Amino acid sequence: MNASNHFLLKAKHVVSMDEKASLFSPGYVEIEGGTIKSTGSTEDKVFSVETIDYGDAAIIPGLINSHNHAAMCLFRGIADDLPLDEWLSGHIWPLEAKHLSPEFIRAGVRLAAVEMLKSGTTFFSDMYFFEHEAARAAKDAGIRIQLGEGLLAFPTPSAKNPEDTFKNIKEQYEKYRDDSLVHLSIACHSTYATTEDQLHRAAELASLWNLPVQIHCAETEKEAQESIAKRGKSQVAYLSEIGLLDTRIGLVHMVWPQEGDLDLLKKDNIGVVLCPQSNLKLASGIPPFGLYLKKGIRMSLGTDSAASNNNLDIWEEMRLAALLAKGSSLDPTSLSAKEALRTVTIDAARTWGIEAELGSIEVGKKADVVVVDLSRPHNTPSYDVYSTLVYAAGGSDVRDVYVEGRRVLKDGKVTGLDEAEVLKEARCWSKKIRDSRANV
Amino acid sequence: MNASNHFLLKAKHVVSMDEKASLFSPGYVEIEGGTIKSTGSTEDKVFSVETIDYGDAAIIPGLINSHNHAAMCLFRGIADDLPLDEWLSGHIWPLEAKHLSPEFIRAGVRLAAVEMLKSGTTFFSDMYFFEHEAARAAKDAGIRIQLGEGLLAFPTPSAKNPEDTFKNIKEQYEKYRDDSLVHLSIACHSTYATTEDQLHRAAELASLWNLPVQIHCAETEKEAQESIAKRGKSQVAYLSEIGLLDTRIGLVHMVWPQEGDLDLLKKDNIGVVLCPQSNLKLASGIPPFGLYLKKGIRMSLGTDSAASNNNLDIWEEMRLAALLAKGSSLDPTSLSAKEALRTVTIDAARTWGIEAELGSIEVGKKADVVVVDLSRPHNTPSYDVYSTLVYAAGGSDVRDVYVEGRRVLKDGKVTGLDEAEVLKEARCWSKKIRDSRANV
Repeated sequence: MNASNHFLLKAKHVVSMDEKASLFSPGYVEIEGGTIKSTGSTEDKVFSVETIDYGDAAIIPGLINSHNHAAMCLFRGIADDLPLDEWLSGHIWPLEAKHLSPEFIRAGVRLAAVEMLKSGTTFFSDMYFFEHEAARAAKDAGIRIQLGEGLLAFPTPSAKNPEDTFKNIKEQYEKYRDDSLVHLSIACHSTYATTEDQLHRAAELASLWNLPVQIHCAETEKEAQESIAKRGKSQVAYLSEIGLLDTRIGLVHMVWPQEGDLDLLKKDNIGVVLCPQSNLKLASGIPPFGLYLKKGIRMSLGTDSAASNNNLDIWEEMRLAALLAKGSSLDPTSLSAKEALRTVTIDAARTWGIEAELGSIEVGKKADVVVVDLSRPHNTPSYDVYSTLVYAAGGSDVRDVYVEGRRVLKDGKVTGLDEAEVLKEARCWSKKIRDSRANV
Repeated sequence: MNASNHFLLKAKHVVSMDEKASLFSPGYVEIEGGTIKSTGSTEDKVFSVETIDYGDAAIIPGLINSHNHAAMCLFRGIADDLPLDEWLSGHIWPLEAKHLSPEFIRAGVRLAAVEMLKSGTTFFSDMYFFEHEAARAAKDAGIRIQLGEGLLAFPTPSAKNPEDTFKNIKEQYEKYRDDSLVHLSIACHSTYATTEDQLHRAAELASLWNLPVQIHCAETEKEAQESIAKRGKSQVAYLSEIGLLDTRIGLVHMVWPQEGDLDLLKKDNIGVVLCPQSNLKLASGIPPFGLYLKKGIRMSLGTDSAASNNNLDIWEEMRLAALLAKGSSLDPTSLSAKEALRTVTIDAARTWGIEAELGSIEVGKKADVVVVDLSRPHNTPSYDVYSTLVYAAGGSDVRDVYVEGRRVLKDGKVTGLDEAEVLKEARCWSKKIRDSRANV
């Protein structure tokens, strides 16, 4: 917590991202007990509580990274410029088989958490293994995590079989159901790596425990076509039949939606989670932003892992989404700066069902806010704060970050972890990983 | 100059970008009198000259931004998310008519120079007006500029008529032909905004003075089709007939090459200068990276102006080019990290005919080098330095910059200008500009 648990932040702009897109310039955010107590314009106001004046800065909602395999940042860029299949089966899977362990997850998530906090992410949706360790590491750093213990039809590094995975998920649910920083989800790997029975059980658990579901879907054209060849229907139609579209579900990637998919998504108000950098880098393709916008499908964004991105800066995804939406549809009005900022704030919160508590700066919501320095040369001059944030600024402009009122980044330095120690640990792991490849 | 004019830089990696892509890890660069005296691996070497050890960093060639209208950064993001025509004629041109002056250019280029040096650019090709003022501002900052006094068939802010522009160009040639920081070019706006006679004169001057030519070309589909409708041939074929492809020419944008264009470019070894962020943002389209790569056409990259980008960080262009090349061609091996780095170093130098002196770290070349900090969380771990530079790092990782052996950026701060003063000046201009719009 801060020195006091009741304090006030002031800045040139407070960008609420609420329904009316309220913008307070200059503005303030009053925080008490980890919650936003009031917010508005600072004009003619006198405040008696402890106040931090951030000057030429914007206070924005904490950013939401809707898809990550955080611990994989220890594999950052280990095998670039390769096709997805070769990258996965020739490099990533063998490396995972050799190295994944609770200790690996701990070191990887600590590194990822530091990187994400430094670039303004306060919530990330994770999907990987040994997620209880990921939860511990995230809590140490003070960042929110949505756990996603990977459910696959095969043995995983953390489970001998799917039964084991369900057991892990249950344990995590029991342990973290009341934890304010650790969010829970059911993370099905994909339609091609799970059985129908497993997906049914996932849907049941999601309903029973009221949890969101995350699943990779339609990442590659090949995968999309295989579903049609095998089942006579798209992956989305298959998920609909199983009942998973009746749950809160984030469909991750969705580069290749098939005919009829968008109607299904629209009907059930399902959001897509696009990972444009990873999709481009692995040459999966350019997600059809124009189609989603035209149909009014809600979009959120994820970095995917640092092994395929190769960093975890969600600002890059936001800018790239805004650019690709225009360039691929030849419509320069597509995904305006303000709309782009929604994809990593309030729209992402909706996808995961946490919009009552997070995703915008509004009275009563949790005090997850990010202070962005707008005084630097590349941000100067600024005629419109949304434009400056999306098209000119970047993760390196983040100065301070608060999660539930706790200052977890102060002047660009994490407060919950020893950054030098985290980096040292990551370099030890990278040496081990490099040596293991040399010995093959 | 440095304290001494003979000194040595050491770092974990020296990335030469020479023909053999020599990589020295750890490596050194010895600089004397503004020139690279030696370079290589530091193993077992003892040095007697003053040495700066940069530790976990990469020393790379100064980055080349091959297309900019630098002073326009005073219009940064003033009218976003609009079609090119509306953006230009409804906003940018009226603003230019009202505000452009030598004083505007001075303030704008000073701001742009600070921004570019801070993100590792040591050479930028400019195309705008009052370019003698741009030269002065760039020299103050210590950054290289390629002057491009805009030649148009119409009156410009700096010329009553094209005759005046030719006069300005001649004066700039006389003044700067022997200046080591100021490079010269003939900058024809485009085939649609110049006459055939003017292009002929441009070709003659380029030959006479041995200067490169820069020209906007095939930025939009509309413009490309209009050339065919009007002349029965593409813009590139038209330029070929006029003789401009016989000069060193950088064709800027080239989003819409027409049939036969690539053969013409290949035959004359002409490079294209792509501005992917600006092209996407204005919805001009995605340049056909796959076609250029397949045909072996040399590619360089530019930011275009901050009015359409909206920053001048050439790292973003490099990463975006590498990503778009893969995502748009569905070939993940397209434009590898190493190839991407060439587009803003040695290949860009070739486009402008300065490869004998710049573009790589080689003995005898000018000492334009950039020190990139690779010790930060988002760069850790690093398994391959090219991958780390292109996919994980960014302009904010630039620590020190040397131009002709002079340290023009030291620990992230420019040494030639007072940054606070430059920012203050830019804010004064932005107030004037904002007020002028409010009064319309």
